Amino acid sequence: MTGEIDTAVILGAGNIAWHLGHFLSKSGITVVQVYNRSREHGKKLAISLKADFTDTADKLEKNAGIYFLAISDDAIKTVVKQLTISKDRLLVHTAGGVDMNVISGITENYGVFYPLQTFSKERHVDFTQIPLLVEANNTENLGRLKQLALTVSRHVYEMGSEDRMILHLAAVIASNFSNHLIACAENILKDRKLALEMLKPLMVETVAKAFAVTPGKAQTGPAVRGNFKLMEKHMAMLRSYPEIKEIYRLISDNIIKFKN
Amino acid sequence: MTGEIDTAVILGAGNIAWHLGHFLSKSGITVVQVYNRSREHGKKLAISLKADFTDTADKLEKNAGIYFLAISDDAIKTVVKQLTISKDRLLVHTAGGVDMNVISGITENYGVFYPLQTFSKERHVDFTQIPLLVEANNTENLGRLKQLALTVSRHVYEMGSEDRMILHLAAVIASNFSNHLIACAENILKDRKLALEMLKPLMVETVAKAFAVTPGKAQTGPAVRGNFKLMEKHMAMLRSYPEIKEIYRLISDNIIKFKN
Repeated sequence: MTGEIDTAVILGAGNIAWHLGHFLSKSGITVVQVYNRSREHGKKLAISLKADFTDTADKLEKNAGIYFLAISDDAIKTVVKQLTISKDRLLVHTAGGVDMNVISGITENYGVFYPLQTFSKERHVDFTQIPLLVEANNTENLGRLKQLALTVSRHVYEMGSEDRMILHLAAVIASNFSNHLIACAENILKDRKLALEMLKPLMVETVAKAFAVTPGKAQTGPAVRGNFKLMEKHMAMLRSYPEIKEIYRLISDNIIKFKN
Repeated sequence: MTGEIDTAVILGAGNIAWHLGHFLSKSGITVVQVYNRSREHGKKLAISLKADFTDTADKLEKNAGIYFLAISDDAIKTVVKQLTISKDRLLVHTAGGVDMNVISGITENYGVFYPLQTFSKERHVDFTQIPLLVEANNTENLGRLKQLALTVSRHVYEMGSEDRMILHLAAVIASNFSNHLIACAENILKDRKLALEMLKPLMVETVAKAFAVTPGKAQTGPAVRGNFKLMEKHMAMLRSYPEIKEIYRLISDNIIKFKN
């Protein structure tokens, strides 16, 4: 199998499937089919992409240019076993935390196409700004995946499974966990009828500064200043929030250790 | 004491003193003097503001329009006791986590002028975008502080000490702790020679999304999906980083609880 990829099948109808499908479509790749076990979500995505829909692995289009597994990590192993696509088709998964070899043995051509971003359906994201990490089982497939990636993003990187899984772990820590800290802040503020919105300029600057001057140099606040009196006061203020208090203690301790 | 404030003395020469001094100056308030115990930092700020410098509390300008205590929380109590300024002068501190009453009894006119932002000297910030929280010991002083605040920022809020200290606590959790998570991510990436920079689009979107759709709805990643297998794998990958592993476990547990 050679040549440019111009047709795709999307397996899955979650957040990544949704954003990827629409962006491929905008970039001139025809999404011919959406496969999903849940008819409701799958059909909705298929209709919005003007693609066919199926919930049956047997009825998958056999000869699309590329097959994107945009399903939950746990489901990948099960779903690939059911695939009856032509042996020469290109099959990729889109999961940061899953080894490429999990999908080996199904087709001769396989790889990974991982967009390093947090996707929610409510939220438009600009794919051209998203780092796309590609990996493939041979040089030819890597070339084809890179070519495809460059049609949707300006930031394309070749990366092996091991490095990609480290990057994904770092992304979980930095992104998902920071989002949770904002949720904790919202929790405390809500109980005093204070608006989370007031923290927005601070959070935008926090991220901009961390990348501009390194997070080590960017750190401010009671822990890095060694203001133990204020930390004690904060923990007393958190007495009705035992879990947030635990997070406060652990991260403050860690900031202090990190500094020394 | 009445009328518009047109001269200021800055006590301190740290990050807030630096940014506040320059922004007041730009906004047409003359900074007449900088007081600081360390001559080196104090003189540097004074020179850049074309202001006088002193390291002696006795030699403080007695009749400036306003005195900003931009010093560390711990030093506020000690420094205010040494102040020999006129009793009718307006004295404010700039600390989110300190009660206004800590500076009562020095002058008849006092308050708080707290810029809700993270300041580092290496980094320019636009004061007009920073929420400024003001509080004063009477209505007249509050009016004067608000007027002053509105000359430097478009986002001025009246807020009592109790609410301000909650907001400051929320800011520490959301901002300082998120910055530390980015530092943890950098740590892991460095050891694999991977660039932190790759996480920038993700982090910018993480913050934008949390404020656009609420952090509860914005959450993604293994914990909120209940992907225990991946969480176990991540913790195994963190075996050489026992402290980051501890943070991983605690916050993941908390995300799971928070969801239910």
